[in-house]
Amino acid sequence: MYSLQFTAESSSNGMLERDFTLGDVPGVLWSPASGTADRAPLVLMAHGGGNHKKHPAMAGRARLLVTGCGFHVAVIDAPGHGDRPRTAHDEAEVAELFRARAAGEPEGPIVVRYNDHLAERAVPEYVAVLDALQDRPEIGTDESVGFWGINMGTAIGVPFVAVEPRITAAVFGQHWPDALAEKAKRITVPIEFDLQWDDEHIAREDGLALFDAFASKEKSLHVNSGKHKELPRYEAESAVRFFARHLGRTFTSPA
Amino acid sequence: MYSLQFTAESSSNGMLERDFTLGDVPGVLWSPASGTADRAPLVLMAHGGGNHKKHPAMAGRARLLVTGCGFHVAVIDAPGHGDRPRTAHDEAEVAELFRARAAGEPEGPIVVRYNDHLAERAVPEYVAVLDALQDRPEIGTDESVGFWGINMGTAIGVPFVAVEPRITAAVFGQHWPDALAEKAKRITVPIEFDLQWDDEHIAREDGLALFDAFASKEKSLHVNSGKHKELPRYEAESAVRFFARHLGRTFTSPA
Repeated sequence: MYSLQFTAESSSNGMLERDFTLGDVPGVLWSPASGTADRAPLVLMAHGGGNHKKHPAMAGRARLLVTGCGFHVAVIDAPGHGDRPRTAHDEAEVAELFRARAAGEPEGPIVVRYNDHLAERAVPEYVAVLDALQDRPEIGTDESVGFWGINMGTAIGVPFVAVEPRITAAVFGQHWPDALAEKAKRITVPIEFDLQWDDEHIAREDGLALFDAFASKEKSLHVNSGKHKELPRYEAESAVRFFARHLGRTFTSPA
Repeated sequence: MYSLQFTAESSSNGMLERDFTLGDVPGVLWSPASGTADRAPLVLMAHGGGNHKKHPAMAGRARLLVTGCGFHVAVIDAPGHGDRPRTAHDEAEVAELFRARAAGEPEGPIVVRYNDHLAERAVPEYVAVLDALQDRPEIGTDESVGFWGINMGTAIGVPFVAVEPRITAAVFGQHWPDALAEKAKRITVPIEFDLQWDDEHIAREDGLALFDAFASKEKSLHVNSGKHKELPRYEAESAVRFFARHLGRTFTSPA
């Protein structure tokens, strides 16, 4: 068992940012600047493929969750991403993805297979990070915990939430059902799911099949026109409202 | 040409309610209590089948739009609904619907056919009401106009918006594509569309086909688990945020 080590700390506009490591996994914990003493719910996030824990999409979502709702938010670099080394297997799969992309071949089969491999490595890391964060006095074990991950974040998040009873609400989206549908059938917590209607990589019926697979009694699908990378910004605010409803806080839109 | 006649006026909690008639069509106009002198955008609404202009769903949506965004909101009774007489044809169709429902037969074919008939009668009424409302000093012709109608409101709204260039954003949902898809193909303004994933009347593929038919470059689909009448309340707030974005106002959630 490793324990959480804080390695850097900064603060801006009402949000405290603390880098941490847990063993060799680097992560970041964002919290209300005023309130590390007051317990608050936690949202675990997972970043998209090729990105990292502090990608602007992560920092932007964290700002909404922290300053809008008072939540704590944590992300870790996925295996082979951000500050983590790539294995020979990572290098080979990334090269194969770039080759397929350049050749105009479908990316889906490679992404599905590689993300599934990454999820096997990442799920135990997310469990360990949640253990360690719940040892922190400002989080604890009584506060609700949510999960938010799109694209590769869904490939990691669906297997994670399927085995992690501490997650009580999750936002997923934009992934193929192949490696995930069977695991989604074990998920019963409320979910919000994003899908792009004109996704050039993921066929509509595939995205709909993954949404359909969740056993959740309460689930919402948000489809928007546009291609894979054109997920509208207002879906981030929608996800934050979803977490506010389900983790028991009020969202106050930043000015 | 008839002109708008106000027949009653009341005010509560920051919202002015004025009943009106335009010829033999009864309607209601909700406005900010403080601001009938200040011009503001207008949202036209259409109620659901078997309901009427002041159904709690209409009044509730109006309150969000008026007190949250400062919009004007108008609804009229559909033909054969609310304070309007039923024709022999209305009586026969309603009786046929109740008979099918009691016999456990599909309601779709009857609803599709009857709603299409009602839309033919209602569309010119909506055009005339919009003309008359734009003659009002607090609305005018320079302010944006939106349309919001679910169920029968969509059966009336799709043909209306397809022929009405003054509508610049619309919320629809929960209807069969049969009589509407061809008209939806002529609609290019931004839309938000609601669909219930476990609708006992409208098959998923039918709901998705109607969403797909809209030619709008910017369109969003909100699917929720649950049956036909279980559309979640938070979709009303989502629709109000949609109108705030597209009609150029800010939504301030009522306390």
